[in-house]
Amino acid sequence: MLHVITKAQAAACVREQLKQMAPRTETVALRQALRRVLAQDIVAAEDIPPFDRTTVDGYAVVAADTFGAGASLPAELEIVGEIAMGEAPAFSLKRGQCAKIATGGMLPPGADAAVMVEHTDDLGGVCLCYAGVSPGANVTKRGDDVTAGTVALQKGTVLGARELGVLAMLGVYDVPVFQKPAVAVISTGDELVTGTPKDGQMRDVNSFLLSAALEDAGCSVRMYGAVKDQKQAITAALEDCLQTADMVLLSGGSSAGTRDMTVEILGEKGEVFFHGIAMKPGKPTIFGTAQGKPVFGLPGHPLAAYFVCRLIVFEALRALLCLPPEEPVGTAPLAVNLPSNHGREEYLCVQKQPDGSLRPLHTKSGVISVLTQADGFVCVPRDAEGFAAGTNVAYYKV
Amino acid sequence: MLHVITKAQAAACVREQLKQMAPRTETVALRQALRRVLAQDIVAAEDIPPFDRTTVDGYAVVAADTFGAGASLPAELEIVGEIAMGEAPAFSLKRGQCAKIATGGMLPPGADAAVMVEHTDDLGGVCLCYAGVSPGANVTKRGDDVTAGTVALQKGTVLGARELGVLAMLGVYDVPVFQKPAVAVISTGDELVTGTPKDGQMRDVNSFLLSAALEDAGCSVRMYGAVKDQKQAITAALEDCLQTADMVLLSGGSSAGTRDMTVEILGEKGEVFFHGIAMKPGKPTIFGTAQGKPVFGLPGHPLAAYFVCRLIVFEALRALLCLPPEEPVGTAPLAVNLPSNHGREEYLCVQKQPDGSLRPLHTKSGVISVLTQADGFVCVPRDAEGFAAGTNVAYYKV
Repeated sequence: MLHVITKAQAAACVREQLKQMAPRTETVALRQALRRVLAQDIVAAEDIPPFDRTTVDGYAVVAADTFGAGASLPAELEIVGEIAMGEAPAFSLKRGQCAKIATGGMLPPGADAAVMVEHTDDLGGVCLCYAGVSPGANVTKRGDDVTAGTVALQKGTVLGARELGVLAMLGVYDVPVFQKPAVAVISTGDELVTGTPKDGQMRDVNSFLLSAALEDAGCSVRMYGAVKDQKQAITAALEDCLQTADMVLLSGGSSAGTRDMTVEILGEKGEVFFHGIAMKPGKPTIFGTAQGKPVFGLPGHPLAAYFVCRLIVFEALRALLCLPPEEPVGTAPLAVNLPSNHGREEYLCVQKQPDGSLRPLHTKSGVISVLTQADGFVCVPRDAEGFAAGTNVAYYKV
Repeated sequence: MLHVITKAQAAACVREQLKQMAPRTETVALRQALRRVLAQDIVAAEDIPPFDRTTVDGYAVVAADTFGAGASLPAELEIVGEIAMGEAPAFSLKRGQCAKIATGGMLPPGADAAVMVEHTDDLGGVCLCYAGVSPGANVTKRGDDVTAGTVALQKGTVLGARELGVLAMLGVYDVPVFQKPAVAVISTGDELVTGTPKDGQMRDVNSFLLSAALEDAGCSVRMYGAVKDQKQAITAALEDCLQTADMVLLSGGSSAGTRDMTVEILGEKGEVFFHGIAMKPGKPTIFGTAQGKPVFGLPGHPLAAYFVCRLIVFEALRALLCLPPEEPVGTAPLAVNLPSNHGREEYLCVQKQPDGSLRPLHTKSGVISVLTQADGFVCVPRDAEGFAAGTNVAYYKV
């Protein structure tokens, strides 16, 4: 082994190397921007709403005219017009006057409130108003939602439906987003097949698992497929992928020989930064560069490969895309003792029990399906003596 | 108003009507199945792993041969061969024999455990084994991950990366998923524009907000755009959309006149089930069918339209796609008193405070940007007198 380092050191090293990868910016149509990451702060170019609007169907009024009005003493107001939706009123209100208006209509100059239709009677040219309203009542004022010049959405925001709604409101129909990092995924292993395995063979899981995980994390992924554990085959696949990808994830090398081969190839084509992380699962992880681009040699075991991808690769991608670090889902007490892990940071899948406590999913090494049975995972730090049952621990989304 | 009903009644009515919509099944390639919903239980056709495999690099052994072995008294085993990755061993082990094997290799008949290479010495034809192992040690047995005949993934599972990994492991390269419900979204309002609004006009927010929300919820969406508040225009848009969509969401009708128009159109083309829900926001919601397909008349206000979509439409879509009902994110104490809402179920956006408590985002009616500032929403039930500060309440993802 070249260097076995802590998980925190590994994460920092990867973050540093990934800095070179992007973040290039591109513009996409608002309708295509779902799940993309905003590449600039979005500053409101105008006040929203751009004018005072009513929030009720009824009458635009001068509030002072209604002061003291009630069921037994209605205010009598002259109806001077009706405000058409989508148009600026062609008149203004003087004291004693009012105008019919529908929800969302633009208040005429002079008006400062609206009265709900339910509190009025239309006598034909005259409106009886049975309720007093304060200035501003039933009105959204210009700029109440967003004021011109304020940052409405920050760089590094993952755009969901709500953010797209705000962009539509602001008229941002062409959205500046980060280009998706282009990542290639290669599986290695003489035993790997896609299809029906013969005795001794296994299906390639990592190609699908890691490609989907990277896509979910906002990457554009080339799934190269499985190659044999031969230096020439791995080198050829890597060179092919490096032509278009910003980053390559090799996985496999479950055997010590392949791990050495990956280190050798990276040594020839670039640099190896570490070989081994003091974490479980994920120890036999290799990281370096080839032709100046970050290359990972992930463990062959899917669970281990997934955890390294989830914890090291995604963390660096988040930093790259200006996303905040991942937060735990919450904290909950442990249902059982979690013993120490002897100098390696340990990640354990957990299931939530009916009483809300967390129970580790103890499984044999090599079992994959645990990933879909887990409600989350917890981390036992490198220097901890383990956790006693009942200890409140943070847990994360698997 | 035809019928104002409770939110629970509205949800039940919508769920019932949506039953006719789908769920048709289609098959997609595994690589394209991310975020789709499984339409059948996936039963493992075979044991996984399909054979006993080692989880270490070292030697396949007969465990009994190593009993009592230690650093000072190694077991001496005859090396009878090496197991190639991806191939079935051409030999079996007898007592006193062992074979070289790499992680993931297939155990030869006769072997029942593996010894790590670190605990051995290769003397050339003879292996000194310095550690005793139990039967099954360092081995994943056939079927340890998934046993043939068991349900590995259930119908109604949203397929994430981990599930795709399991499907790859099982060799399910063509995945049975529900077809995406085809939904059309129409905005109505004389004041709506896409582009730069003039005085009195507003940008169409709902088209983008609702389309994205529905896509995120697994629908295939046609965004029709904004039409004028005219019976003919709305009817034409609705008829156009009904040709291909399974369901149509009209939104707008902020004015009472449009609401009546939507009810009238649905009355002519089908049936109106309810007109008004005792919830806030979202009261002026219309639901019915046209040409036998579910049609919603959502409030024009984006916040209200979004909440009805989120709470009523999505809930029904989840039931349709066999997804479990939505769970709250968690519970947390209220930072302030939440007053009663007088007979309407009330939904309030909340922000998480540094101390973990929830504070309602009080805003003027008509304000949209609150949606992106919220960390969640809480519900004050229809019959509650409100909640006192400090009460633990469930909160949901906005």
